[in-house]
Amino acid sequence: MPGGSPQTLGPFLWRAANLYPDTEIVSRTHEGMVRYDYATYADRTAQLANALDAAGYGDGDRLATFCWNHHRHFETYFGVPGIGAQLHTINPLLPDEHIQYIVENAADRTIFVDESFLPKLEGAVADDPDPFSTVDRYVVMGESMPETDLEAVAYDSFLEGHDTEYDWPELDEDQPAGLCYTSGTTGRPKGVEYTQQMLWAHTMAIQQPQGIPLDDDDVMMPVVPMFHVNAWGLPFSATAGGAKHVYPGPQPSPEDLATLIEEEGVTVTAGVPTVWLGLMEHVKEHDTDLSSLDRLVVGGSAAPEAMIRFFDDHDVELVHAWGMTETAPVGSVAHLKGNLEDADYDTQVEKRSKQGLITPGLEFRVVGDDGEAVAWDGEAFGELLVRGPWVTREYFARPDATEAEFEDGYLKTGDVVTVDEDGYIKIVDRAKDVIKSGGEWISSVELENELMAHDDVTEAAVIGVPHERWQERPLALVVPTEGTDTDALADDLREHVLDSYPKWWVPDNFVTIDEMPKTATGKFSKKTLREEYGDASLVEGRVPEDAAPE
Amino acid sequence: MPGGSPQTLGPFLWRAANLYPDTEIVSRTHEGMVRYDYATYADRTAQLANALDAAGYGDGDRLATFCWNHHRHFETYFGVPGIGAQLHTINPLLPDEHIQYIVENAADRTIFVDESFLPKLEGAVADDPDPFSTVDRYVVMGESMPETDLEAVAYDSFLEGHDTEYDWPELDEDQPAGLCYTSGTTGRPKGVEYTQQMLWAHTMAIQQPQGIPLDDDDVMMPVVPMFHVNAWGLPFSATAGGAKHVYPGPQPSPEDLATLIEEEGVTVTAGVPTVWLGLMEHVKEHDTDLSSLDRLVVGGSAAPEAMIRFFDDHDVELVHAWGMTETAPVGSVAHLKGNLEDADYDTQVEKRSKQGLITPGLEFRVVGDDGEAVAWDGEAFGELLVRGPWVTREYFARPDATEAEFEDGYLKTGDVVTVDEDGYIKIVDRAKDVIKSGGEWISSVELENELMAHDDVTEAAVIGVPHERWQERPLALVVPTEGTDTDALADDLREHVLDSYPKWWVPDNFVTIDEMPKTATGKFSKKTLREEYGDASLVEGRVPEDAAPE
Repeated sequence: MPGGSPQTLGPFLWRAANLYPDTEIVSRTHEGMVRYDYATYADRTAQLANALDAAGYGDGDRLATFCWNHHRHFETYFGVPGIGAQLHTINPLLPDEHIQYIVENAADRTIFVDESFLPKLEGAVADDPDPFSTVDRYVVMGESMPETDLEAVAYDSFLEGHDTEYDWPELDEDQPAGLCYTSGTTGRPKGVEYTQQMLWAHTMAIQQPQGIPLDDDDVMMPVVPMFHVNAWGLPFSATAGGAKHVYPGPQPSPEDLATLIEEEGVTVTAGVPTVWLGLMEHVKEHDTDLSSLDRLVVGGSAAPEAMIRFFDDHDVELVHAWGMTETAPVGSVAHLKGNLEDADYDTQVEKRSKQGLITPGLEFRVVGDDGEAVAWDGEAFGELLVRGPWVTREYFARPDATEAEFEDGYLKTGDVVTVDEDGYIKIVDRAKDVIKSGGEWISSVELENELMAHDDVTEAAVIGVPHERWQERPLALVVPTEGTDTDALADDLREHVLDSYPKWWVPDNFVTIDEMPKTATGKFSKKTLREEYGDASLVEGRVPEDAAPE
Repeated sequence: MPGGSPQTLGPFLWRAANLYPDTEIVSRTHEGMVRYDYATYADRTAQLANALDAAGYGDGDRLATFCWNHHRHFETYFGVPGIGAQLHTINPLLPDEHIQYIVENAADRTIFVDESFLPKLEGAVADDPDPFSTVDRYVVMGESMPETDLEAVAYDSFLEGHDTEYDWPELDEDQPAGLCYTSGTTGRPKGVEYTQQMLWAHTMAIQQPQGIPLDDDDVMMPVVPMFHVNAWGLPFSATAGGAKHVYPGPQPSPEDLATLIEEEGVTVTAGVPTVWLGLMEHVKEHDTDLSSLDRLVVGGSAAPEAMIRFFDDHDVELVHAWGMTETAPVGSVAHLKGNLEDADYDTQVEKRSKQGLITPGLEFRVVGDDGEAVAWDGEAFGELLVRGPWVTREYFARPDATEAEFEDGYLKTGDVVTVDEDGYIKIVDRAKDVIKSGGEWISSVELENELMAHDDVTEAAVIGVPHERWQERPLALVVPTEGTDTDALADDLREHVLDSYPKWWVPDNFVTIDEMPKTATGKFSKKTLREEYGDASLVEGRVPEDAAPE
């Protein structure tokens, strides 16, 4: 006997519109600042629903967005799933061929697009119109229409004249509500579908004390793009909590963010470390009032300890969270446990810089190469497997990928982690980069950090190369600092690594290279390195007999 | 495509046992204080699961408890639902015939019973053994067995020798996990079944900022009995949050509670107003240290404003919550909204003394006699209808009751309420007591309070009696204060009511009675009053022509 109504997003909006009709939603747009309240938001969302109905969209249709963070994008967050359709947020920064693949795979029926992203989208369509054959209408996010060759209408005209009341259908909790593609570093992007229930459960989960709870005196500003896993779900949870929303619009600069924090009294904001590095620099150089800011959520990649300390000095709690598109996204938060409240500050910062404690409601395993669970000692590592009510269990229309990346209902995250005695998870490598030597794993990331800490090294990458006896052995590729004596470098680095790591971790060879190959997003391209240096001859015969795992 | 695993209670315990193995569970028992940690709790819960398995209990079996709040009772909370069975918490304070009916209706297979409740249960069984025919084993909560004629075993012996590891089954989220009967004032008790999903959703819901959030630095003591809707779900949410638990055991006195708060550092406690009235008296007379106490949750009946003010003076936030067995139970919490943080104190206390704001995730309607929604103005009233993922939509094995008390998936709560401009719900009457006059409703509770505020009145009850023109009219039954001149009383009271209420609210007649009939639980028995005074002749012809609703 289940409960009296399904787990759907609708009641969150219903509650906010009725209990907090005057609470503001503020949006920085290309047309200037827009400011309205939940009552108006609910009206406009109903208008959007009526307009979508009238346009013939409904149950099961996938409607895409290609937008920055602003109020119109937020209107699609409740409006599209509310009619039983599926909100497909596309990352406009992807290469054209990925966008073409994604739209074709999703068979999107419409695309809501920002004026600033219109040229990019036009280019992708012009390059190959076929994948866009299911799209019968483009809606440009604004009051009026810019020039375009696409079959398009301005968003505000699309809504105009439609009723501000809408009879929201009673949806099943398994109704698909969202869709987001992971932009993996290899292979085609994979779609993750979110049901109404998954979004409901994720909203409830991050509202817990050990999530990112938002109350009705909070002012939430998601800097993380709304095309990245629904801005980490914050637009939904802020609505559930009745918080004020602030959307920073297209390409906000550190100055824009500082101004919004000051003027709108932002209490909680969220984004990737790069954004906060920019804000740190801005704060150092300008007189910035961060006094309203209570919490700053960091995810996407690891938060450096220095960043945690910097914001602590400004009375802002940096909250480090981990997640993936597949986990909707929040999977862990580096909340400081009650028993660590009296620990020394360095210990606290170390804990807070890890990926954190599993979110209540989820389960995880960390599995070594032998398939066995590893010890929670902060040393042993293995691949992180996670499952729970808001973790997907398959990829959209990709049974091949599902087969490969799930096990027993657990998602194989591809992250290699340690878990310490307190249960904090720390990512030490990606599964495809970790070096498997004699049945034990060596973290490429740790070796790279250790090498790059050496004065003579500018950049370093470590890859595993095949080895007859040990399966794989580490090979270091280093870009030396200008003026370094490269003859002595390998010996120096060998000694340097030995200071902190066991003998069997020391790379078998250190190859000097002029330039580090990079991916489109600026990461070291280990794929290129493997192609060029993955030859066993570079390590064969170099490993000492006693370098086996202890 | 649903999420990767069902919504079940198991992961909450798994997380607490792994992340907080040393966090304490403290229990006041008839054998003295017991103190262990989550790791031990998980071990004992696994032992209980193994013992239940070995005894042949499993999927779908209903296993009952007849207990106070202590660690063994808490072990059944995860142990019984964890094996796929259903935890049926029986209120041992009910009359024997209710207990007999409940056990028969539920077809319980075992009953876990406290030593102190054993005589009561033995009496009920001796009185009529038939309803207990499905019960094949009684388990007495303790180390050793007291004397009894029942087929019984001591709990600790029942567990002894069983393994502390248990391979918990993967349960469906619709698996029945709990069962609790409402002890309605009329008719037979009605069972409310909680699925795994409902308990999961309720746990998540009360962990929100506008619920009763518990974190890993909290110490939670439920004084509300664990046989009252799972102690309002707090044993589950405390586990989800990793809080320390304190169970106050059999019949805790105000002094016991004060001692536990002081010695265990309780931060959050919960119970009915009577309990806190007792604590208030204790605090006034003794030097009590309430400094650890952060929040005191009050439910079950209305929290007087004076109680809110008293605890504010002691830096303890009184959190007023409303719920029913049917709502698992939390439905609203009188959280102070962000926009009221600057309101004057009296306004704040008034808001906080109401039943509160609907919990995020639920929906409600307030429907007048005409079936239309009433205005949110704090004046108009109607019956409260509520629905949501943790609200039941039917009664256990009682289609007749389901038919009568649900509408469109909404639960008809039987509470007559107002909703103010801020969305605060306030109960003004029970639906069966409200007086329906000329298409408008008159609150019996408000009239009673007004009459009892008069010096000449000791007790007063107001009932509706049939009226040809107005359908119903109010009749007041008053017990006058000793020495009152009863001749002038009716006129005095008429004037008194008119000072605050419109003419059509004034009772048509004031009948003096010697003694107020009471129910078993000490409430005014309106049923008895209706039988004795429900005759139309007592009001007919007395209502003034202009007394119609305006």
